[in-house]
Amino acid sequence: MEKFELTILGCGSALPTTRHFASSQVVNIREKLYMIDCGEGAQLQLRRSRLKFSHLNHVFISHLHGDHCFGLIGLISTFGLLGRTAPFFVHAPAAFGPMLQELLDFFCKGLDFTVQFYPIDTTQHALIYEDRSVSVYSIPLHHRTECSGFLFREKPTLPHIRRDMIDFYHIPVYEINNIKNGKDWITEDGKTIPNSWLTTPAEPPRSFAYCSDTCYLPELRSCLEGVDLLFHEATFLHQDLARAKETYHTTALQAATLARDSQVRQLCIGHFSARYEDESQLLEEAQSVFSHTILAKENLTIKI
Amino acid sequence: MEKFELTILGCGSALPTTRHFASSQVVNIREKLYMIDCGEGAQLQLRRSRLKFSHLNHVFISHLHGDHCFGLIGLISTFGLLGRTAPFFVHAPAAFGPMLQELLDFFCKGLDFTVQFYPIDTTQHALIYEDRSVSVYSIPLHHRTECSGFLFREKPTLPHIRRDMIDFYHIPVYEINNIKNGKDWITEDGKTIPNSWLTTPAEPPRSFAYCSDTCYLPELRSCLEGVDLLFHEATFLHQDLARAKETYHTTALQAATLARDSQVRQLCIGHFSARYEDESQLLEEAQSVFSHTILAKENLTIKI
Repeated sequence: MEKFELTILGCGSALPTTRHFASSQVVNIREKLYMIDCGEGAQLQLRRSRLKFSHLNHVFISHLHGDHCFGLIGLISTFGLLGRTAPFFVHAPAAFGPMLQELLDFFCKGLDFTVQFYPIDTTQHALIYEDRSVSVYSIPLHHRTECSGFLFREKPTLPHIRRDMIDFYHIPVYEINNIKNGKDWITEDGKTIPNSWLTTPAEPPRSFAYCSDTCYLPELRSCLEGVDLLFHEATFLHQDLARAKETYHTTALQAATLARDSQVRQLCIGHFSARYEDESQLLEEAQSVFSHTILAKENLTIKI
Repeated sequence: MEKFELTILGCGSALPTTRHFASSQVVNIREKLYMIDCGEGAQLQLRRSRLKFSHLNHVFISHLHGDHCFGLIGLISTFGLLGRTAPFFVHAPAAFGPMLQELLDFFCKGLDFTVQFYPIDTTQHALIYEDRSVSVYSIPLHHRTECSGFLFREKPTLPHIRRDMIDFYHIPVYEINNIKNGKDWITEDGKTIPNSWLTTPAEPPRSFAYCSDTCYLPELRSCLEGVDLLFHEATFLHQDLARAKETYHTTALQAATLARDSQVRQLCIGHFSARYEDESQLLEEAQSVFSHTILAKENLTIKI
C-alpha cells in the first residue's frame, strides 16, 4: 500500500505544559507532506520527526488562535535558511492573509521562494485543494473564531499487477504501465486477455479528517461518514461540559459519539486541556462510547 | 547571598536542531525574572524550568532575527490566558514597536494588562532600565541588523547582621532594619556601638553580560571588565572564521579571547551553529584560551 500516515507534532491546547507542544500535525501521502496547523514549536517537532522539510509544500491553518499558527513564521524563515526555492502554499481563513504578508515583509526579506496564500471559506464543506495524490476539503466548524476542519481523501491508486500472469503470457516490461492503467493484452495469436485477469484491484482510497477546535457538531456526520481516521479535539472531560460549551470545545464523550455515529474506522483524540495531568481519563471516557479510540501524543505516527 | 542566577532556555542558532531551542535566557535576581531574547519555544522552556510566569515583567530583545523574538507573541498570549493584570515591558530595537503592536491587535485582543514598549538605542552603552534590584545597560554589538547586548549589574545589597553582637547588646528585633541600613546603636547607658561592630559587609554587587549576536568586538572590554559571568555567542569554530566574518558571528576562540582580556570571572558560550554535532570542540577551543569557560545547554542554571 502506498504511504498515507499522520504524524502528531503537537496535541496540547493553548496553555503550554511540559507534556505537550501546541497543535500541529503532518499528513504524509506518498512522501508528500501536508501540515495541518502550525503552533509554536512545530518546526522543532518537524525536525525531530525526521520528515523532510523539502517535501512540505502546503500548510492548512484551521483558525487564527495562536496555538494553531504561531509557529508558521518560524517555519517559513527556516525554509529560507535552508535555501528553499519551491513555492510554499498557506491555506487559512482570509483574515490571515494581510497579517502573514506583514510578517513576511518584516522578518523574511529576500526569500528565494514565494509564499502563496489561499483563503479558506470556513462556512463551506468544499474542495479547497487537489493534486495527483489527494483532494482536501474544508469542514465548517464552530469555535470562538472562524474555523475550518480538513478532510483528506486519497486519490484512487492503480491496480496491482499479477506477476504470475505477466510471466505466463510473457508480457514485456514496457507494457506494464499500460496494463496498470487498464489495457487488455493481445497475445501473438490474437487472443485478448482481459485486464481483470492480469491485475488485482487497488485498495479503496483512504481518508483522514481533522476537526479542531470546535464545539460538538453532530451534523458533521455527513462529512465524516466512514473516514478511516478521524482526529477530533477532546479538550475536556464530560464532567466539564459547561466549560466546554463556554469555550466552544468538545468533550471526549462527544468526540467519541460523533466517531461512532459517523462510523469512522478509528478515532484519535487530542488538544487536551492543561488541567488534566492524567489523560487516560479522556481515553477511557471516549472508549466507553467508541472502542477504536487512541490518544494523540507527540511524535506518534498513525498508519491510515 | 541573595539569588542571582541565569537559566538557559535555548542556546541554538537560527536553524532548528533536535539538540537546541532558539535563543532565550532568564536572569533571576531575588526572584524577579528578566528574560533576554525570546526565540520560538521560549514559553515552553520557561514552563519546564518551573520559573514563575508571574515573576517575569521584562523582556530584553537583542535584535529582530526570528530566532531571538518569534516566541514573544506566544508568551504574551499565554500571559493573557493566565489572567495576568501586571504590565509587561518589552525592550527591543525601535523597529519592533509597530510590528509588536500589530501582532497584539491581531492576536491578543482584550488583554487585561498592558504591553509597554521601550526602544533600545543599539548604538549606545547606556542605562536602559533600573529597579531596586538591578541596573540594566545596553551594549552596542555589531551584527547584520541592529543589535544590543545587555549588562545586568546587581544593586548593592545590605550588610549582614552579626547575630552574636545583636544578642550581646540585647538589641530589639525592630531595630534590625535600621542597623542593616547603617545606624549605630546607643546602649542604655549612652554608649555608642558603631555600626561596623554590628554588621559584616555585604557581598560586592555581581554582574552578568549577554553578547549575542555579534562579530568579535575587542573594544567591548571596557563594558565587560571584571563581570562575574559573560554569556557570549560562539557560533563557529575558529577554522570557520571566514563564515563567522561573513555572517557577523564570533568564533569560540574569539569569545574566549574577549573573556580573558576583559578579566571576567566565568564565560558561558552558546548560540551554536547547527553544523557542529559535537559541541565539545567549541568548548575545548575556548578553554585553550580561557579555562573558566562552560558550554550553554538547555535548562542549565548558573549561579552568579
